[in-house]
Amino acid sequence: MRKPKIVILGAGYGGLMTVTRLQKQLGVNEADLVLVNKNDYHYETTWLHEASAGTLHHDRVRYDIREVIDTQKVEFVQATVEEIKAEENRVILSTGEIAYDYLVISLGAESETFGIKGLKEYAFSISNVNAARQLREHIEYQFATYNTEEEKKDERLSIVVGGAGFTGIEFLGELANRIPELCKEYDVDFHKVKLICVEAAPMVLPGFDPELVDYAVSYLEKKGVEFRIGTAIKEAIPGGIIVGKGEEEVEEIKAETVVWAAGVRGNSVIEKSGIEAMRGRVKVQLDLRVPGKENLFIIGDCSLIINEEINRPYPPTAQIAMQQGELCARNIAGLVRGKSELETFEFDNKGTVCSLGEDEAIGTAFGKKFYGAKASFLKKMVDNRALYMIGGPSMVFKKGKFNIF
Amino acid sequence: MRKPKIVILGAGYGGLMTVTRLQKQLGVNEADLVLVNKNDYHYETTWLHEASAGTLHHDRVRYDIREVIDTQKVEFVQATVEEIKAEENRVILSTGEIAYDYLVISLGAESETFGIKGLKEYAFSISNVNAARQLREHIEYQFATYNTEEEKKDERLSIVVGGAGFTGIEFLGELANRIPELCKEYDVDFHKVKLICVEAAPMVLPGFDPELVDYAVSYLEKKGVEFRIGTAIKEAIPGGIIVGKGEEEVEEIKAETVVWAAGVRGNSVIEKSGIEAMRGRVKVQLDLRVPGKENLFIIGDCSLIINEEINRPYPPTAQIAMQQGELCARNIAGLVRGKSELETFEFDNKGTVCSLGEDEAIGTAFGKKFYGAKASFLKKMVDNRALYMIGGPSMVFKKGKFNIF
Repeated sequence: MRKPKIVILGAGYGGLMTVTRLQKQLGVNEADLVLVNKNDYHYETTWLHEASAGTLHHDRVRYDIREVIDTQKVEFVQATVEEIKAEENRVILSTGEIAYDYLVISLGAESETFGIKGLKEYAFSISNVNAARQLREHIEYQFATYNTEEEKKDERLSIVVGGAGFTGIEFLGELANRIPELCKEYDVDFHKVKLICVEAAPMVLPGFDPELVDYAVSYLEKKGVEFRIGTAIKEAIPGGIIVGKGEEEVEEIKAETVVWAAGVRGNSVIEKSGIEAMRGRVKVQLDLRVPGKENLFIIGDCSLIINEEINRPYPPTAQIAMQQGELCARNIAGLVRGKSELETFEFDNKGTVCSLGEDEAIGTAFGKKFYGAKASFLKKMVDNRALYMIGGPSMVFKKGKFNIF
Repeated sequence: MRKPKIVILGAGYGGLMTVTRLQKQLGVNEADLVLVNKNDYHYETTWLHEASAGTLHHDRVRYDIREVIDTQKVEFVQATVEEIKAEENRVILSTGEIAYDYLVISLGAESETFGIKGLKEYAFSISNVNAARQLREHIEYQFATYNTEEEKKDERLSIVVGGAGFTGIEFLGELANRIPELCKEYDVDFHKVKLICVEAAPMVLPGFDPELVDYAVSYLEKKGVEFRIGTAIKEAIPGGIIVGKGEEEVEEIKAETVVWAAGVRGNSVIEKSGIEAMRGRVKVQLDLRVPGKENLFIIGDCSLIINEEINRPYPPTAQIAMQQGELCARNIAGLVRGKSELETFEFDNKGTVCSLGEDEAIGTAFGKKFYGAKASFLKKMVDNRALYMIGGPSMVFKKGKFNIF
């Protein structure tokens, strides 16, 4: 009897949870496991704001995939996914193609610019290791250049962050700590630096506890961040952005660094493959399969499940992707062993913590609110937990955050 | 009786030697000492190639001027020199003006582009701390950007160094060591990187012992440097240079980083002040005074003295500037005390060492040739000696190079 082949696309939080659980749950004689990923490393998407600001080296936010998979049981293919031919049970890769019996799509998110002009050309993003270190170096180059010019261009010291959501706020928290270091490094007057957060929505961190949001905003303001809430970016141009307030008013904000952190969408491979989706996210069944497809699972940022409590989709978070990965592995193992009844997804909310830099954060967990040192401690525990869940204690030891006191 | 005021312009090797010797030789009641410098720090010009390549942090190549001057005896003015009114015994500074009884011009060199088109706009230089760290960050940004682009631009990994003189060769030596680190940092294939040295003259390191030059060239070639000797840069353009071979042939070399290290000239303030000069260098008397000016001394890179042995000017080096500084201090102290006979400059050649990176160098000293570890050791001793001569043992302890074995 031929062994079924299980192919997992993407080695993010969801994909790696799936593959590390499957390699434990299934014996070598039960199935062939193949993991496909663009890079030979996994990166902690939720730590990229630190690498982007330059407060944590990018090698601290990534690790070799081969360190967490059992290479006796899992074949690793380094390739980019180009298209999924779901009707034919095969995937087109940059390096060839691969057939499957079960497929897990865990390709993660992409930046969503909502068609705003110029963002693709002139704005940086925090979407992967390459983008993060480019952004870090860009900011540093602006500071390094400032004093070389006879006529000082203060816009070199201005950084606009588009978006006051999780990524934008966490990035600003790191920047607020990094800027004094950059000023010292390049003999720049701190008071010339501008950190501007531009957000179209009327609030910061929508969905977060308002009291904690107030705490975060006033903390960041004290550190020099200027908030422009209810202000939409109309266009990104070389050297700045155009914002609108209301219908008529338009204003230019000069800044050599513009970072777009205001939106994500599912992977565009989903649409390229003809799978029905909303901004790259596929409404999956509670067993994580695509409706009508017995062998096609989608988890993480490319999947969409409605939170019945508030009748809105669950957000694309690492926590959810990891829980889905665990479930996905159990369901596939069940199918391989002839089970017909699959388990369904139920979100186990372990809380949410938003970092505001090295030693400050806000969060909710265990039905309580946290801020300051306690929240910061919690955040590091959340970060270490992700390492532990996928890579075990040795990975926590290697890449964990222990600067906790 | 009014105390004479001695003003020293520039805190480079020559200026600081002068001022540190004068503060020892003259009592507070004998003269007022004023040191003027653009920055509040001194930098080791001969180490800038290291800061530019990123192999030594720029804070290691500079120190606070107040650490080496006796602030009880010397007034320090942080200002840019705009013009010297030698007829009126005063200097126009960016912050006002200052009158003097004795003036020492030790303003150092500037980059000389010989009118080659585009160099000012598109080429980097290694001329000061600001320029060095900008160059370091520019190179790093190119490497950081490489992997973010779908279509890889190999010219981001190409660095052209214009000039195979001392600065060019020392910079290439550092780069050859730095490149493998950058490749690792940014996941770049080492074989895609190009280091190209373009030199119009038919030789590398003119004036240096040919056997040692051969050693240096083959060492750098082994490390990946490509030499284009007898090749003149006709023009720098965005993203590269145009070179000419012979009269007709023209070729474009693509490189996002072009560094001009092929020429220096004296400070342009000299010409602005109407002092007769050749490319900013003033032919001074052997007592270091400008002919016809009893109270105007010029030392270092803005001065020009003919080496009678070969009937050519002494090159602008730190060694010569420092020897001139010592002599200049003695001569001024003499004048203050009413001496009319001044001492004359005689170069005491202590040898020359050209670094090829962290642990490789070539050099001549004590009538012998050196290369490899011995030459590298000598180079570090030369560097430490400059610290010692100006700042004493504590400065050597702070900024010295002790990685000597």
